Amino acid sequence: MRIQRRTGPFWDGVTGRAPMPPAAATLGFEFLDADPDAGWIEVAFAATDAFTNPMGEVLGGFLAAMLFDTVGPALLATLDPDEFQTTLEFKSSFLRPARPGRLIGHGRVVHRDGQLAFLDATLADVAGILATATATARVTRNP
Amino acid sequence: MRIQRRTGPFWDGVTGRAPMPPAAATLGFEFLDADPDAGWIEVAFAATDAFTNPMGEVLGGFLAAMLFDTVGPALLATLDPDEFQTTLEFKSSFLRPARPGRLIGHGRVVHRDGQLAFLDATLADVAGILATATATARVTRNP
Repeated sequence: MRIQRRTGPFWDGVTGRAPMPPAAATLGFEFLDADPDAGWIEVAFAATDAFTNPMGEVLGGFLAAMLFDTVGPALLATLDPDEFQTTLEFKSSFLRPARPGRLIGHGRVVHRDGQLAFLDATLADVAGILATATATARVTRNP
Repeated sequence: MRIQRRTGPFWDGVTGRAPMPPAAATLGFEFLDADPDAGWIEVAFAATDAFTNPMGEVLGGFLAAMLFDTVGPALLATLDPDEFQTTLEFKSSFLRPARPGRLIGHGRVVHRDGQLAFLDATLADVAGILATATATARVTRNP
Protein backbone atom coordinates (compact mmCIF):
# COMPACT_ATOMS: atom_id res chain seq x y z
CA MET A 1 0.00 0.00 0.00
CA ARG A 2 2.67 2.45 1.04
CA ILE A 3 4.31 2.32 -2.43
CA GLN A 4 1.24 2.33 -4.70
CA ARG A 5 1.11 6.11 -5.02
CA ARG A 6 4.84 6.40 -5.84
CA THR A 7 5.76 7.48 -9.38
CA GLY A 8 8.91 8.05 -11.43
CA PRO A 9 11.48 5.98 -13.35
CA PHE A 10 12.58 3.95 -10.31
CA TRP A 11 9.04 2.81 -9.45
CA ASP A 12 8.25 2.22 -13.12
CA GLY A 13 11.23 -0.15 -13.25
CA VAL A 14 10.59 -2.10 -10.06
CA THR A 15 6.87 -2.48 -10.66
CA GLY A 16 7.24 -3.65 -14.27
CA ARG A 17 5.77 -0.50 -15.91
CA ALA A 18 9.17 0.02 -17.60
CA PRO A 19 11.97 -2.42 -18.50
CA MET A 20 14.36 -3.21 -15.67
CA PRO A 21 17.81 -1.57 -16.03
CA PRO A 22 20.22 -4.01 -17.76
CA ALA A 23 22.60 -4.23 -14.77
CA ALA A 24 19.72 -5.11 -12.44
CA ALA A 25 18.45 -7.76 -14.87
CA THR A 26 21.96 -9.28 -15.10
CA LEU A 27 22.01 -9.61 -11.29
CA GLY A 28 18.53 -11.18 -11.25
CA PHE A 29 17.22 -8.18 -9.31
CA GLU A 30 13.70 -8.47 -7.93
CA PHE A 31 11.88 -5.82 -5.91
CA LEU A 32 10.21 -7.29 -2.81
CA ASP A 33 9.12 -4.50 -0.50
CA ALA A 34 9.98 -0.99 0.67
CA ASP A 35 8.97 1.70 3.08
CA PRO A 36 10.35 4.92 1.58
CA ASP A 37 9.20 6.99 4.55
CA ALA A 38 11.14 4.75 6.93
CA GLY A 39 14.02 4.52 4.40
CA TRP A 40 14.29 0.77 3.87
CA ILE A 41 13.98 -1.60 0.93
CA GLU A 42 13.99 -5.38 0.51
CA VAL A 43 15.15 -6.89 -2.80
CA ALA A 44 16.27 -10.28 -4.12
CA PHE A 45 18.98 -11.42 -6.52
CA ALA A 46 19.58 -14.61 -8.49
CA ALA A 47 23.23 -15.60 -8.00
CA THR A 48 24.01 -17.92 -10.91
CA ASP A 49 26.94 -20.18 -11.77
CA ALA A 50 28.16 -17.35 -14.04
CA PHE A 51 29.13 -15.44 -10.87
CA THR A 52 31.29 -18.17 -9.30
CA ASN A 53 34.98 -18.60 -8.57
CA PRO A 54 36.87 -21.88 -9.15
CA MET A 55 35.53 -23.27 -5.82
CA GLY A 56 31.94 -22.80 -6.97
CA GLU A 57 31.37 -19.91 -4.56
CA VAL A 58 29.89 -16.61 -5.69
CA LEU A 59 32.78 -14.21 -6.29
CA GLY A 60 32.81 -11.49 -3.63
CA GLY A 61 32.79 -8.96 -6.45
CA PHE A 62 29.31 -10.08 -7.44
CA LEU A 63 28.13 -9.99 -3.82
CA ALA A 64 29.47 -6.42 -3.81
CA ALA A 65 27.55 -5.67 -7.02
CA MET A 66 24.35 -6.97 -5.38
CA LEU A 67 24.94 -4.91 -2.24
CA PHE A 68 25.60 -1.89 -4.47
CA ASP A 69 22.29 -2.58 -6.18
CA THR A 70 20.63 -2.70 -2.75
CA VAL A 71 21.91 0.57 -1.24
CA GLY A 72 21.17 2.43 -4.50
CA PRO A 73 17.50 1.38 -4.67
CA ALA A 74 17.10 2.07 -0.92
CA LEU A 75 17.92 5.70 -1.65
CA LEU A 76 16.17 5.88 -5.06
CA ALA A 77 12.94 4.72 -3.40
CA THR A 78 12.96 7.89 -1.26
CA LEU A 79 13.67 10.38 -4.06
CA ASP A 80 11.40 12.62 -6.11
CA PRO A 81 10.73 11.47 -9.70
CA ASP A 82 13.21 14.05 -11.12
CA GLU A 83 16.01 13.17 -8.69
CA PHE A 84 18.74 10.59 -9.23
CA GLN A 85 21.73 9.49 -7.21
CA THR A 86 25.43 8.89 -7.72
CA THR A 87 27.30 6.56 -5.40
CA LEU A 88 30.54 8.22 -4.28
CA GLU A 89 32.03 5.39 -2.25
CA PHE A 90 31.08 1.90 -1.23
CA LYS A 91 32.55 -0.57 1.27
CA SER A 92 31.65 -4.21 1.76
CA SER A 93 32.67 -6.89 4.26
CA PHE A 94 32.47 -10.59 3.44
CA LEU A 95 31.33 -12.70 6.39
CA ARG A 96 31.09 -16.16 4.82
CA PRO A 97 31.10 -17.85 1.40
CA ALA A 98 27.96 -17.73 -0.77
CA ARG A 99 26.66 -20.45 -3.07
CA PRO A 100 24.57 -19.76 -6.19
CA GLY A 101 20.89 -19.30 -5.40
CA ARG A 102 18.44 -16.65 -4.28
CA LEU A 103 19.97 -13.94 -2.10
CA ILE A 104 18.04 -11.30 -0.18
CA GLY A 105 19.23 -7.70 0.17
CA HIS A 106 18.06 -5.29 2.86
CA GLY A 107 19.03 -1.68 2.21
CA ARG A 108 18.61 1.36 4.38
CA VAL A 109 19.02 5.13 4.25
CA VAL A 110 20.88 5.66 7.51
CA HIS A 111 21.06 9.46 7.29
CA ARG A 112 20.33 12.17 4.75
CA ASP A 113 22.13 15.52 4.93
CA GLY A 114 21.17 17.74 2.00
CA GLN A 115 22.63 16.24 -1.18
CA LEU A 116 24.52 13.58 0.78
CA ALA A 117 23.07 10.27 1.89
CA PHE A 118 24.61 7.59 4.09
CA LEU A 119 23.42 4.08 3.29
CA ASP A 120 23.91 0.52 4.47
CA ALA A 121 22.83 -2.95 3.42
CA THR A 122 23.05 -6.64 4.20
CA LEU A 123 22.96 -9.60 1.81
CA ALA A 124 21.70 -12.93 3.12
CA ASP A 125 20.85 -16.49 2.13
CA VAL A 126 18.52 -18.79 4.06
CA ALA A 127 21.25 -19.40 6.68
CA GLY A 128 21.80 -15.72 7.44
CA ILE A 129 23.92 -12.73 6.52
CA LEU A 130 26.69 -13.31 3.95
CA ALA A 131 28.01 -9.79 3.47
CA THR A 132 27.40 -6.21 4.59
CA ALA A 133 27.99 -2.82 3.02
CA THR A 134 27.99 0.90 3.68
CA ALA A 135 27.93 3.61 1.03
CA THR A 136 27.89 7.36 0.58
CA ALA A 137 25.85 8.82 -2.25
CA ARG A 138 25.03 12.22 -3.69
CA VAL A 139 21.51 13.11 -4.76
CA THR A 140 21.26 15.03 -8.04
CA ARG A 141 18.31 16.60 -9.83
CA ASN A 142 17.83 15.79 -13.50
CA PRO A 143 18.06 18.89 -15.70
CA MET B 1 59.38 -13.73 -19.09
CA ARG B 2 58.96 -13.17 -15.39
CA ILE B 3 55.75 -15.22 -15.29
CA GLN B 4 56.65 -18.15 -17.57
CA ARG B 5 57.96 -20.32 -14.75
CA ARG B 6 54.87 -19.75 -12.54
CA THR B 7 52.57 -22.73 -11.96
CA GLY B 8 49.29 -23.45 -10.17
CA PRO B 9 45.56 -22.97 -10.76
CA PHE B 10 45.77 -19.18 -11.04
CA TRP B 11 48.43 -19.25 -13.77
CA ASP B 12 46.65 -22.14 -15.53
CA GLY B 13 43.54 -19.95 -15.70
CA VAL B 14 45.13 -16.72 -16.90
CA THR B 15 47.38 -18.41 -19.47
CA GLY B 16 44.57 -20.51 -20.96
CA ARG B 17 45.85 -23.92 -19.72
CA ALA B 18 42.60 -24.24 -17.73
CA PRO B 19 39.14 -22.67 -18.24
CA MET B 20 38.74 -19.19 -16.86
CA PRO B 21 36.63 -19.02 -13.65
CA PRO B 22 32.97 -18.28 -14.56
CA ALA B 23 32.88 -14.95 -12.70
CA ALA B 24 36.01 -13.76 -14.54
CA ALA B 25 34.54 -14.82 -17.89
CA THR B 26 31.30 -12.96 -17.11
CA LEU B 27 33.31 -9.78 -16.50
CA GLY B 28 35.30 -10.26 -19.72
CA PHE B 29 38.50 -10.69 -17.68
CA GLU B 30 41.74 -10.76 -19.64
CA PHE B 31 45.21 -11.16 -18.15
CA LEU B 32 47.66 -8.63 -19.57
CA ASP B 33 50.83 -8.59 -17.48
CA ALA B 34 52.16 -9.06 -13.97
CA ASP B 35 55.30 -8.87 -11.88
CA PRO B 36 54.61 -11.12 -8.90
CA ASP B 37 57.93 -10.21 -7.27
CA ALA B 38 57.03 -6.53 -7.39
CA GLY B 39 53.40 -7.36 -6.48
CA TRP B 40 51.48 -5.83 -9.38
CA ILE B 41 49.16 -7.08 -12.09
CA GLU B 42 47.52 -5.54 -15.15
CA VAL B 43 44.22 -6.97 -16.41
CA ALA B 44 41.39 -5.92 -18.73
CA PHE B 45 37.60 -6.25 -18.61
CA ALA B 46 34.86 -6.00 -21.20
CA ALA B 47 32.10 -3.79 -19.78
CA THR B 48 29.01 -4.64 -21.81
CA ASP B 49 25.55 -3.12 -22.09
CA ALA B 50 24.40 -5.84 -19.67
CA PHE B 51 26.21 -3.93 -16.90
CA THR B 52 24.53 -0.55 -17.46
CA ASN B 53 22.08 1.60 -15.52
CA PRO B 54 19.15 3.48 -17.13
CA MET B 55 21.54 6.26 -18.26
CA GLY B 56 23.67 3.81 -20.21
CA GLU B 57 26.53 4.08 -17.71
CA VAL B 58 28.20 1.01 -16.22
CA LEU B 59 26.63 0.42 -12.79
CA GLY B 60 29.15 1.17 -10.06
CA GLY B 61 28.48 -2.30 -8.70
CA PHE B 62 30.03 -3.81 -11.81
CA LEU B 63 33.01 -1.44 -11.60
CA ALA B 64 33.36 -2.70 -8.03
CA ALA B 65 33.19 -6.32 -9.25
CA MET B 66 35.99 -5.57 -11.75
CA LEU B 67 38.12 -3.89 -9.09
CA PHE B 68 37.47 -6.89 -6.83
CA ASP B 69 38.66 -9.12 -9.67
CA THR B 70 41.81 -6.98 -9.95
CA VAL B 71 42.92 -6.94 -6.31
CA GLY B 72 42.28 -10.68 -5.99
CA PRO B 73 44.48 -11.67 -8.96
CA ALA B 74 47.18 -9.20 -7.82
CA LEU B 75 47.51 -11.26 -4.65
CA LEU B 76 46.90 -14.66 -6.27
CA ALA B 77 49.77 -13.99 -8.66
CA THR B 78 52.15 -13.87 -5.69
CA LEU B 79 50.94 -17.04 -3.95
CA ASP B 80 52.25 -20.60 -3.95
CA PRO B 81 50.25 -23.11 -6.03
CA ASP B 82 48.58 -24.57 -2.90
CA GLU B 83 47.61 -21.20 -1.44
CA PHE B 84 44.35 -19.33 -2.02
CA GLN B 85 42.93 -16.08 -0.73
CA THR B 86 39.70 -14.83 0.81
CA THR B 87 38.82 -11.16 0.58
CA LEU B 88 37.71 -9.89 3.99
CA GLU B 89 36.75 -6.35 3.08
CA PHE B 90 36.73 -4.18 0.01
CA LYS B 91 36.18 -0.45 -0.53
CA SER B 92 35.77 1.40 -3.79
CA SER B 93 35.48 5.07 -4.76
CA PHE B 94 33.79 6.18 -7.97
CA LEU B 95 35.54 9.12 -9.63
CA ARG B 96 33.55 9.49 -12.84
CA PRO B 97 30.93 7.64 -14.94
CA ALA B 98 32.02 4.71 -17.12
CA ARG B 99 30.65 3.76 -20.53
CA PRO B 100 30.62 0.19 -21.87
CA GLY B 101 33.93 -0.77 -23.44
CA ARG B 102 37.34 -2.11 -22.53
CA LEU B 103 38.49 -1.15 -19.04
CA ILE B 104 41.98 -1.66 -17.63
CA GLY B 105 42.64 -2.73 -14.05
CA HIS B 106 45.93 -2.21 -12.20
CA GLY B 107 46.19 -4.17 -8.96
CA ARG B 108 48.87 -4.10 -6.32
CA VAL B 109 49.88 -5.93 -3.14
CA VAL B 110 50.60 -2.93 -0.94
CA HIS B 111 51.72 -4.91 2.11
CA ARG B 112 51.80 -8.50 3.26
CA ASP B 113 51.84 -9.36 6.97
CA GLY B 114 51.68 -13.13 7.49
CA GLN B 115 48.23 -14.33 6.46
CA LEU B 116 46.99 -10.79 5.89
CA ALA B 117 47.46 -8.81 2.69
CA PHE B 118 46.61 -5.18 1.97
CA LEU B 119 45.73 -4.52 -1.66
CA ASP B 120 44.74 -1.67 -3.92
CA ALA B 121 43.63 -1.18 -7.51
CA THR B 122 42.56 1.34 -10.10
CA LEU B 123 40.17 0.88 -13.02
CA ALA B 124 40.60 3.09 -16.08
CA ASP B 125 39.32 3.75 -19.58
CA VAL B 126 41.29 5.55 -22.30
CA ALA B 127 40.57 8.91 -20.64
CA GLY B 128 41.99 7.90 -17.25
CA ILE B 129 41.00 6.49 -13.87
CA LEU B 130 37.29 5.79 -13.32
CA ALA B 131 37.35 4.17 -9.90
CA THR B 132 39.75 3.05 -7.19
CA ALA B 133 39.68 0.35 -4.53
CA THR B 134 41.44 -0.96 -1.45
CA ALA B 135 40.97 -4.40 0.05
CA THR B 136 42.12 -6.62 2.89
CA ALA B 137 42.53 -10.33 2.23
CA ARG B 138 43.55 -13.45 4.12
CA VAL B 139 45.83 -16.03 2.55
CA THR B 140 44.83 -19.64 3.19
CA ARG B 141 46.53 -22.91 2.33
CA ASN B 142 44.47 -25.57 0.58
CA PRO B 143 44.14 -28.76 2.63
